[in-house]
Amino acid sequence: MPKREWKPDWKRRTAGKPGRGARPQRTSLQRPGHASDPDGPVILYGWHPVKAALENPARHIRRLLATENAVRRLTEDHVPLRVEPELVRPQTIAQRLSPDALHQGLLVEADPLPSPELEDIEPAGIVLVLDQITDPHNVGAISRSAAAFAVSAVVTTARHSPEATGVLAKSASGALEYVPLVTVQNLARALGALKERGYLVVGLDSSGEVDFAEAAIRSPLALVLGAEGKGLRQLTLATCDQVARLDVPGRIKSLNVSNAAALALYLASKRLASA
Amino acid sequence: MPKREWKPDWKRRTAGKPGRGARPQRTSLQRPGHASDPDGPVILYGWHPVKAALENPARHIRRLLATENAVRRLTEDHVPLRVEPELVRPQTIAQRLSPDALHQGLLVEADPLPSPELEDIEPAGIVLVLDQITDPHNVGAISRSAAAFAVSAVVTTARHSPEATGVLAKSASGALEYVPLVTVQNLARALGALKERGYLVVGLDSSGEVDFAEAAIRSPLALVLGAEGKGLRQLTLATCDQVARLDVPGRIKSLNVSNAAALALYLASKRLASA
Repeated sequence: MPKREWKPDWKRRTAGKPGRGARPQRTSLQRPGHASDPDGPVILYGWHPVKAALENPARHIRRLLATENAVRRLTEDHVPLRVEPELVRPQTIAQRLSPDALHQGLLVEADPLPSPELEDIEPAGIVLVLDQITDPHNVGAISRSAAAFAVSAVVTTARHSPEATGVLAKSASGALEYVPLVTVQNLARALGALKERGYLVVGLDSSGEVDFAEAAIRSPLALVLGAEGKGLRQLTLATCDQVARLDVPGRIKSLNVSNAAALALYLASKRLASA
Repeated sequence: MPKREWKPDWKRRTAGKPGRGARPQRTSLQRPGHASDPDGPVILYGWHPVKAALENPARHIRRLLATENAVRRLTEDHVPLRVEPELVRPQTIAQRLSPDALHQGLLVEADPLPSPELEDIEPAGIVLVLDQITDPHNVGAISRSAAAFAVSAVVTTARHSPEATGVLAKSASGALEYVPLVTVQNLARALGALKERGYLVVGLDSSGEVDFAEAAIRSPLALVLGAEGKGLRQLTLATCDQVARLDVPGRIKSLNVSNAAALALYLASKRLASA
């Protein structure tokens, strides 16, 4: 029988002593999990992110907050619960999130996944490289598309990138459990390392000299995307083997960066599959 | 010389009498513009949305709040100012928006654009139909892709659709000025009307019996997209001439709805152009 936990979250956190049944590793009882707290837990909410995390043995789950309905749905779907779920009302979860967050009765506190090294990624297929894309909705949607197009890794910079938690994880719809996220200190150096390992490095930028649909690509391919507005940084552009643009016929000449990523991944995976 | 306006916005709104130079139509001096206020002005912020609005003669501009730098940039870009800009500090604009909003020193209060009728849209090319997509980031990004792929209209339901203001307008990146937004009361009836006018109505749904890349399409084409999670409603599905899916090779089988829209628009516009 799952443990019941009806108290609102702030009561648990401000309580003078740990609650009944609290275990030592549940340090978050005293400390809310914020994206801004680097030692805090990763927050995953909503059906897809929580289901994928529970099904990922590499993801260490600290707490599972769930409504009775959500626990029933997980059980019916044969999702392993991993930890004893704390049965809560929807409002208890909603309190932890922004007002428009669709939590579907599920919230997990977990450890971040270990970030592999670039050398750990087998040089095959496509890796996606994000040059300081800061919007968590976009990085989340890009991660989701990366999983949809079987990308082998997403490479981001340690600085100027959103953390893999909350809104990003929700937008990723479970993809964080499927696609390794490689965090690097220096993007140009990482691109150099990819080249040494045989990757063709293609940047997507409106300044590109060729339409990506016509670009000479091959596997392994590193696709580099820049932030909305700013695009690829100068050093990133200079490090790419090629810079390509995505041609569109209408009055607006650029797509949202996650839309551009999806389109580029579609084109690249189609062409590499038929090569 | 533009009028200076250093007072924070709440001071203007709570002032007992209209400020110097206030004109009768500036009712928003007493009334802040919220998306939740149906009579309130549309709020457009950021470079692309504001520039496109100022360049659109059909868009009635009520107020332009801008930093000195932003006014200089508009002038250098030969953007018509339309109204006397109120010079403000960045914080004055930031106060009106959510903390993460990138306003780039520009905010416009404007009237909503008139919503044309379905019959006003020439039956040619592609229209995009949104079945209760509620997330303003997604609807904005879809509008932007609609403008990028020269879609002739975006059709949404009057209910369960976000208003064309704020975050939606920002994500649309100016597209609201280029692509007519048609609001209908009943989507199934609207799809029926499109069919009568010669449109082929194709729904995109994971339940689709054919891959959209292989679907038999022709112009004029109505592409129907459903909300994340819920997908197309039963009556919408039943009204479509065809239902198609977007096949992807990876572990996640569905894309973010705006990503799916961009990909479908790319495929459709390529195939209709070569037909």
